[in-house]
Amino acid sequence: MANDELKRIAARIEHRLVELFDAAAAGPSSGIFPTPLRTPVLEEVRELTLRGGKRLRAALVICGASLFDDGAEEEPAVIDAAAALELLHAYFLIHDDIMDDDATRRGGPSLHVALADRLGDPRLGRDLAILAGDLAAALHEGLVSRLDTAESRRRLAAAIFSEMHLDVVHGQTLDMLGQSDAEEVALRKTASYTTVGPLTIGAALGGASPDQLVELAAIAAPIGVAFQLRDDLLGAFGTSKVTGKPVGTDLRRGKRTFLLAQALKSSSAEERAAIEAVLGVADAPDDAVARATAALVSCGARRVCEQRCDRLVGGALEAIGAGGNRYRDGGKGLLIRLGELITKRDS
Amino acid sequence: MANDELKRIAARIEHRLVELFDAAAAGPSSGIFPTPLRTPVLEEVRELTLRGGKRLRAALVICGASLFDDGAEEEPAVIDAAAALELLHAYFLIHDDIMDDDATRRGGPSLHVALADRLGDPRLGRDLAILAGDLAAALHEGLVSRLDTAESRRRLAAAIFSEMHLDVVHGQTLDMLGQSDAEEVALRKTASYTTVGPLTIGAALGGASPDQLVELAAIAAPIGVAFQLRDDLLGAFGTSKVTGKPVGTDLRRGKRTFLLAQALKSSSAEERAAIEAVLGVADAPDDAVARATAALVSCGARRVCEQRCDRLVGGALEAIGAGGNRYRDGGKGLLIRLGELITKRDS
Repeated sequence: MANDELKRIAARIEHRLVELFDAAAAGPSSGIFPTPLRTPVLEEVRELTLRGGKRLRAALVICGASLFDDGAEEEPAVIDAAAALELLHAYFLIHDDIMDDDATRRGGPSLHVALADRLGDPRLGRDLAILAGDLAAALHEGLVSRLDTAESRRRLAAAIFSEMHLDVVHGQTLDMLGQSDAEEVALRKTASYTTVGPLTIGAALGGASPDQLVELAAIAAPIGVAFQLRDDLLGAFGTSKVTGKPVGTDLRRGKRTFLLAQALKSSSAEERAAIEAVLGVADAPDDAVARATAALVSCGARRVCEQRCDRLVGGALEAIGAGGNRYRDGGKGLLIRLGELITKRDS
Repeated sequence: MANDELKRIAARIEHRLVELFDAAAAGPSSGIFPTPLRTPVLEEVRELTLRGGKRLRAALVICGASLFDDGAEEEPAVIDAAAALELLHAYFLIHDDIMDDDATRRGGPSLHVALADRLGDPRLGRDLAILAGDLAAALHEGLVSRLDTAESRRRLAAAIFSEMHLDVVHGQTLDMLGQSDAEEVALRKTASYTTVGPLTIGAALGGASPDQLVELAAIAAPIGVAFQLRDDLLGAFGTSKVTGKPVGTDLRRGKRTFLLAQALKSSSAEERAAIEAVLGVADAPDDAVARATAALVSCGARRVCEQRCDRLVGGALEAIGAGGNRYRDGGKGLLIRLGELITKRDS
């Protein structure tokens, strides 16, 4: 799905992440804190961060910068901000997986499970995974506070990083408290650091003004909601092989997705019964999950979500197009390809 | 114990922390992430951060700056760096208390216990406490990346913050893995972010050169070890009322302190038996703990630790004194008072 441009971006971010992990393992350079930092925790954070993922956030940082600056992809500050987003993502995933007790991530063990297995102690694995998230956060912080660009741009980007960090923590808090609907969680947990934050951070580094950033945030938010819709669809219909997660997990967990909300609205009594039979039932048998999944299709919820996903991304791309020469062509082209990646992605 | 100057510094940091928590509750200001952030998690982080503590780290930041710059105490960047240290401290305490299953902190409930009680759910309390630590880290990051001073000083300070953050995570990792002795844990977990980091961050903001920072780090490290020695002594001999922690906790946990290492070296067979009878015994009776505590005194371990503590701080102050006019008088005076606070503190 990803074309050559996106692959090149992913490779560049990967390369920078490897450099950063190598530097972390070599130890601090100031002479103030002298000893190197090689521990199983650093090794596992490195492994998870490099294990893959789509590098979508990193690509959106570069896209945001490219909307305002033609040479953005070559700017070290833009690459570092993109790498910082990937580290922030790893940190959130690590802590989220502890909270949700998720055993798999990116087609392998989640970090607390990997550490528990390695050390033969689940409690120690969990405790060290808290530290592993903290380590990724520390590497992220180091990059953000030292982005090498004009001071006014750096400060603007750093301010967005900080607001985004708080917003995601808040979104996850509301989610844990069950105090928000699918829409609010999608906006905060997903849109804020999947599209809104990355795109505006990139734009700030590309030279956008504060007003232009607000305008761009309004364009980025629906793309983030579309990303979440696609996630919900993959959570229900994707195969374990392409998503890296077990089939039917969202249903068995009773996750309040858009897809579920739509299904509960438009289903017949029979379809609803099939869904409710497995909803939140951790050990629901596979054939019952298959019946519930079929009901999500037959009631029309799948189609509604797919259409909404396309409409959200389409509207955002239209708004960018209507921006005329406010936005550079290179950035616009990249955003179109990222929009396609989001609406059509299969993992 | 704290004199007027230290009280004034603590009040100033407190004031800045209140401003920061108010701003966080009012929500982001960029217009990119629109909604306010008032949750039980934010409230509890605020409560714990403002509940007290000695503000020693904050004072050491100001001291470090004052060693190189007479007006340091009035510099907003210095105050912000000091407040950032207190937020970093809160974040570490919150996550450490989850890992150590500590129920009390600063004379009140630790944060995961406060949230568990408030929400009537221990598991949810623990999960939200992970987020609470993350929230304090986010507030810390926001301050560090936007310290308002000359760019060269800001970058130097930010680099130290980042190395320090990694170093503490590493120290806690080694501690959890049981792969380090009391000395290494004290250097990493305590010295790094209690004295070395704060003093050098302040010095960087005050205009010290990288070489001067390395020199100052070597002076700060023994003060940090002395702080840990004093902590061990308070953990064994302090009353619950002044330390805010239950008496005998370190012994019952089997914590590998300097004090314990010294006692195991210099005790008679009888003294050693009294200590080992409660060491690592979570439900050891109070009278047995009292006998073990008495043995720590009679074997001379207490005296050795007290003397070592005095000697470490004395040596550091001598080194500062020998620096002649490289260091400003105001900063030197403040460091002497902080050294006294550390060697004589009773909480």
